[in-house]
Amino acid sequence: MDDAVVTDPITRADIDAAADRLRGHAVRTPLLNAPSLDAAMGRRIWVKAECLQKTGSFKFRGGLNAVAQAGGDVVTYSSGNHAQGVALAARMAGRKSVIIMPTDAPQVKIDNTRGYGAEVILYDRATEDRFAIGAALVGERGLELISPYDDARVIAGQGTCGLEIAQDLPEEVSEVLVCCGGGGLAAGVALALEGRATVRTVEPEGFDDMARSLRSGTRQENAAKVGSLCDAILTPTPGELTFPVLQRLAGPGMVVTDEEALRAMAIAWDHLRIVLEPGGAVALAAGLFHHTGDVAVIATGGNVDRDVFLRALSPS
Amino acid sequence: MDDAVVTDPITRADIDAAADRLRGHAVRTPLLNAPSLDAAMGRRIWVKAECLQKTGSFKFRGGLNAVAQAGGDVVTYSSGNHAQGVALAARMAGRKSVIIMPTDAPQVKIDNTRGYGAEVILYDRATEDRFAIGAALVGERGLELISPYDDARVIAGQGTCGLEIAQDLPEEVSEVLVCCGGGGLAAGVALALEGRATVRTVEPEGFDDMARSLRSGTRQENAAKVGSLCDAILTPTPGELTFPVLQRLAGPGMVVTDEEALRAMAIAWDHLRIVLEPGGAVALAAGLFHHTGDVAVIATGGNVDRDVFLRALSPS
Repeated sequence: MDDAVVTDPITRADIDAAADRLRGHAVRTPLLNAPSLDAAMGRRIWVKAECLQKTGSFKFRGGLNAVAQAGGDVVTYSSGNHAQGVALAARMAGRKSVIIMPTDAPQVKIDNTRGYGAEVILYDRATEDRFAIGAALVGERGLELISPYDDARVIAGQGTCGLEIAQDLPEEVSEVLVCCGGGGLAAGVALALEGRATVRTVEPEGFDDMARSLRSGTRQENAAKVGSLCDAILTPTPGELTFPVLQRLAGPGMVVTDEEALRAMAIAWDHLRIVLEPGGAVALAAGLFHHTGDVAVIATGGNVDRDVFLRALSPS
Repeated sequence: MDDAVVTDPITRADIDAAADRLRGHAVRTPLLNAPSLDAAMGRRIWVKAECLQKTGSFKFRGGLNAVAQAGGDVVTYSSGNHAQGVALAARMAGRKSVIIMPTDAPQVKIDNTRGYGAEVILYDRATEDRFAIGAALVGERGLELISPYDDARVIAGQGTCGLEIAQDLPEEVSEVLVCCGGGGLAAGVALALEGRATVRTVEPEGFDDMARSLRSGTRQENAAKVGSLCDAILTPTPGELTFPVLQRLAGPGMVVTDEEALRAMAIAWDHLRIVLEPGGAVALAAGLFHHTGDVAVIATGGNVDRDVFLRALSPS
């Protein structure tokens, strides 16, 4: 990663400032709890419903906070949720946005990103390098790069989700499970909840670079680039900015299978009446299938193609 | 209807008191807006997501407010959403609840009501009279009746949904569309929004007793008792308490088809990432297909059997 990243350390004041920028623009999402689900599990599960956020994922938070501080038009790369968050935030701010998306992103995410007014440039995840494409656009077209996670403005924006959790979370709950791609949300929420609750990252099987990195103490890479339904969180390696934060604040990383993510989607549909995408359901899956106590999870996104959703609702 | 109803007029102070009782127990639901949907419609639509309320519908509000003021164990009749709201509220208050439900209620609603600890008594909607069964239980077992809508405590509880809408609604929006069975939610919300916005009731085709009653000035009945997917809102006639309130405060009633409700469910899934049942989607359907301006709607419930939901998501 040779692209310029904003490397200031992120403070609680940065997250508070982000919350001020988001007020009146982002959805103040509820922390849901389903007594029917608690009864089935024999313990309590709290679900921060970020799928209800503008553009259907928490990414609008970081996108808006970054765009609000950018000097002009912006470029970013994203499998789709950060894309939509930045695209809408840019349109709201009267800026142009260019988004570099993989060809295998869900069609709904590509369509919606264009719908929010962005210029979409597609690349092949297996053979092309999105960082190089982004760097070229910064040079050629004078755009400002917003990294999906290795950007202090983005991390602070995602941290606002943690501030809201702290306001709503029952005192006795001390663990918050957070899906993890590059770690922007997990790092932001960990900073916002420092001293109040411990964050644990959740990744899909085969893409557990953060869990292995936390275990080994150095940033590990994933062997695979494709091969999970959880398209939203398939990043190659932990972020340069996010990893030290999570090393300091996060508990051991957790891993779930695609099948568990699909089961969590069905349970969210049934008990919480929210629509999740596979990557948005991994923290709930970890809370349901790999945890034994009262716990909070972030349900991070709901931008899902119809066939994948129907698959989750139709047990094989 | 010869059962005793609480007939005090409902004041704003009653709704404020209900809000105090609900605080910390009910979900403070968001008023959602999807830029992608606005763009498709060419106008703005705001959606109060009461499907995220405890027990999956706004009915928990009125149920909790009524149970909190009841002297002992309670009985009520309901096709399922009021049933669940009262059952959970009673369990939280340490009371017993008996719920009279039609045999053709969605299985998920019957199961969940039992799951919340209620005793469920089933009756045949076509041949039996739920009011008579309820009155008998009041006499035989000393239970206190909570009418699903003709009860000032219930109406005031539902009104808290209107207080929240008033806090979140952009100033320029002046119409709020509300699904209508007996009219408890519509009346409560109309009272809470008095002077701020006008409520319009929305009913399924063939069950438009409120629309016809508002037009004629007297309470009309429905010919049919069954025959709509919108099981949640198939009441025979407007309530004694609710009708005068709506006569004074509501605009003309609106009517939608089952097919429109299913289309609204798919749009809510796609653009808002919420799960709605047909009866919970009629106000959104009216806002989408029978309105031409900026408007707010209440998405009232999400307790839906899987086959009905899959039908909504699978265009014929």
